[in-house]
Amino acid sequence: MAETPEPDAAHMARAVELAARGHGATSPNPVVGCVVLDAAGQVAGEGFHAFAGGPHAEVVALEQAGERARGGTAYVTLEPCDHTGRTGPCSGALLRAGVSRVVVAVPDPTPKAAGGAERLRAAGVEVRVGVLEAEAERVNEEWLTYARLGRPHVTWKLAATLDGRSAAEDGTSQWITSPEARADVHRLRAASDAVMAGIGTVLADDPRLTARPAPPQDPRPDDPRPDDPCPDDPRLTGRQGLPHGLPDGPRPPSARRVPLRVVVDSDARTPPTARVLDGQAPTLVAVAEDAPAALDADLLRLPRRDGGLDLEALLRELAARDVVSVFLEGGPTLAGSFMRHGLVDRVVAYLAPAFLGSGRAALGPAGVRSVSGIHRLVFDDVTPIGPDLRLTARPPHRVREQ
Amino acid sequence: MAETPEPDAAHMARAVELAARGHGATSPNPVVGCVVLDAAGQVAGEGFHAFAGGPHAEVVALEQAGERARGGTAYVTLEPCDHTGRTGPCSGALLRAGVSRVVVAVPDPTPKAAGGAERLRAAGVEVRVGVLEAEAERVNEEWLTYARLGRPHVTWKLAATLDGRSAAEDGTSQWITSPEARADVHRLRAASDAVMAGIGTVLADDPRLTARPAPPQDPRPDDPRPDDPCPDDPRLTGRQGLPHGLPDGPRPPSARRVPLRVVVDSDARTPPTARVLDGQAPTLVAVAEDAPAALDADLLRLPRRDGGLDLEALLRELAARDVVSVFLEGGPTLAGSFMRHGLVDRVVAYLAPAFLGSGRAALGPAGVRSVSGIHRLVFDDVTPIGPDLRLTARPPHRVREQ
Ligand SMILES: NC(=O)c1ccc[n+]([C@@H]2O[C@H](COP(=O)([O-])OP(=O)(O)OC[C@H]3O[C@@H](n4cnc5c(N)ncnc54)[C@H](OP(=O)(O)O)[C@@H]3O)[C@@H](O)[C@H]2O)c1
Ligand SMILES: NC(=O)c1ccc[n+]([C@@H]2O[C@H](COP(=O)([O-])OP(=O)(O)OC[C@H]3O[C@@H](n4cnc5c(N)ncnc54)[C@H](OP(=O)(O)O)[C@@H]3O)[C@@H](O)[C@H]2O)c1
Repeated sequence: MAETPEPDAAHMARAVELAARGHGATSPNPVVGCVVLDAAGQVAGEGFHAFAGGPHAEVVALEQAGERARGGTAYVTLEPCDHTGRTGPCSGALLRAGVSRVVVAVPDPTPKAAGGAERLRAAGVEVRVGVLEAEAERVNEEWLTYARLGRPHVTWKLAATLDGRSAAEDGTSQWITSPEARADVHRLRAASDAVMAGIGTVLADDPRLTARPAPPQDPRPDDPRPDDPCPDDPRLTGRQGLPHGLPDGPRPPSARRVPLRVVVDSDARTPPTARVLDGQAPTLVAVAEDAPAALDADLLRLPRRDGGLDLEALLRELAARDVVSVFLEGGPTLAGSFMRHGLVDRVVAYLAPAFLGSGRAALGPAGVRSVSGIHRLVFDDVTPIGPDLRLTARPPHRVREQ
Repeated sequence: MAETPEPDAAHMARAVELAARGHGATSPNPVVGCVVLDAAGQVAGEGFHAFAGGPHAEVVALEQAGERARGGTAYVTLEPCDHTGRTGPCSGALLRAGVSRVVVAVPDPTPKAAGGAERLRAAGVEVRVGVLEAEAERVNEEWLTYARLGRPHVTWKLAATLDGRSAAEDGTSQWITSPEARADVHRLRAASDAVMAGIGTVLADDPRLTARPAPPQDPRPDDPRPDDPCPDDPRLTGRQGLPHGLPDGPRPPSARRVPLRVVVDSDARTPPTARVLDGQAPTLVAVAEDAPAALDADLLRLPRRDGGLDLEALLRELAARDVVSVFLEGGPTLAGSFMRHGLVDRVVAYLAPAFLGSGRAALGPAGVRSVSGIHRLVFDDVTPIGPDLRLTARPPHRVREQ
């Protein structure tokens, strides 16, 4: 029954690939992919978790494998859950299907769902944990950050010249980066649970903060987002990219959920006419506990800290609202605060091959006085986007743990 | 005799590769590579111009081919010269060797040396011009800029964080980029004819501005740099990387010439104790015509313009001193002036995956008020250097012409 590590890694790579298909649609659940082999080592089923409320990856793959799963091997990117949701834990589903071996990439960090591996072992199933762990960590980095730290994963996006300017001296900033880069930003917005900006940006630029990727998405802001029910309804497979043709059972949300817009605005200065309040997507305005109550918007009251709102409290409140991933769009002042407090998990920098020599800096004061206090990251990806470059970087400890 | 374009491109690619070996050692001459085929199409000789005063690429390759050149084809990255130096033009050498076909990548832009293709055609040789022109332009970009514009080619180097800072708030800047990036800078300095900085940088950082690449080079600052003599001394081949074991004839300069250090210092404020005056390499201090004469250094007197020295006059004077390539190391004020005047031909940016949020900007005011006046370039290369990225960009017209 034992396989060499090589096929294990190859099948897990496929499971990671499957997991990635759920990106942007599973919050507050993780993205998970699963491959099931029959006893002869042939692929018998594949699945991924396609949307919150939909079936788990294991359930999809096992359903597809049917009787062929008996005596086979299941590859799962995240340790199978062991908690009883609507229809019982995935560990139980694997046992019922009769697989003899389960290969896991990343252990489940949540007390609620962990224990699946132990339960499988106790039932005599061979369990191997840690195969392609780095890749599976990466594909699920948003949820793992949320699960481990109790706050959303934060991506800070900047668009700037090679000398770090995001607007010219006269305030003009349209367009430093290319249409291709802007389209890429919309894609990343759409894959996030929340898009955030400071009141400075709202007052100066009046952004909409909506995700408008091409092709346009169907906004359905009030989709129910049920809490991880762990159903194993066999009719919900969702294997072909996005789910379709579902006869009944829980409906999936729209193709992509609409990201929540969040404005960080201590004194509730957001104008009633601001585009972020246009109703095109839900908006939360984070204000101080003592802020005026005049604003007709969904307000989140938070303590003040260091002359602004308490950002850790803000993130905790967003996590409580099932926000797993935040896309922070600036401005420089707010981004500087996030950086100073170590709350940036990923930086996505769109750099234009251009220079301004003056104008607004992409990043405001970030608590650094001397080079010894520099915020140092690690480059992770460099991709040309039209004439620009998209650089992705992460704090070193996050890279190490992945 | 006629060949398909495919082998022409392949042989010219080899000639471009050969030309590159001369980089940093040929000024004020171009880098040139040559491949000679015999009448049967077999490679019979290869050569490149290895140092100013050494034999031209054609001469080296023809010498190696000997009688096999008769009826053969010569590939040359730059149009063979037609002016009579010490021993006659290269066009004459090609005719004497009896080649029947000459393939050229780039026409010679100088009135003095051009006409080689015409002379060859007049003598009945088949001449094809423009094969792999872009690649041959690129390998020779410094000299072609110098020949076409009458001024040195200028590379501006910056080393900065992703938010465009090259020093922290307290002035510390050691080290934002990695040892690998700094070693790469020394390599580029060594390949330049001059390394330039403003007096602000000299007063603040007291840099040495010498090229200290690993392995260390043998400095020989007073090597003679004879003016393009076009010798065809067969004993000087220089084909094996750098020339060695030369019995007699003109001696080549040391492995690499020592770059001239240039300080831009209107009021002659360079302290006598400054490291740039340490005698480790020649130094030119550019000062205003009315500057105090107290400084015991090699002074270049220039007119003032826009509150500083006239940079175009400075570059013209450097060209007159056989400086073909300038490596501009800053600071931000001087770099901003070069950028404003359209005098930057290439930008090499070393970006660390790090953020400061405050401190010295890598680029000072560059004459841009609005995004419509932005200095826009085109990315040409992205290379990881240790943990950092090295981005190379050029103005669009320079990219187009190449
Ligand atoms: N042209 C210029 O020189 C210039 C200069 C500045 C700004 N601007 C414009 O303003 C826009 C963005 O600039 P910005 O950096 O000021 O805006 P920002 O980063 O979008 O918003 C910053 C504001 O967010 C609020 N905030 C609440 N809690 C915070 C916390 N913990 N940390 C940081 N901020 C917190 C603060 O205002 P409250 O305390 O009032 O909530 C703060 O001023 C740009 O689009 C630009 O056009 C232009
Ligand atoms: N910590 C800080 O906030 C801070 C601020 C500024 C500078 N610095 C230090 O100074 C260094 C570089 O700064 P920098 O930008 O001032 O120096 P820079 O660019 O190296 O030199 C600029 C100086 O070059 C001279 N110059 C002559 N002709 C010029 C022309 N056509 N265009 C521009 N400049 C011309 C000018 O002084 P003359 O007219 O006198 O010749 C000018 O001030 C850094 O290393 C930094 O440590 C620090």
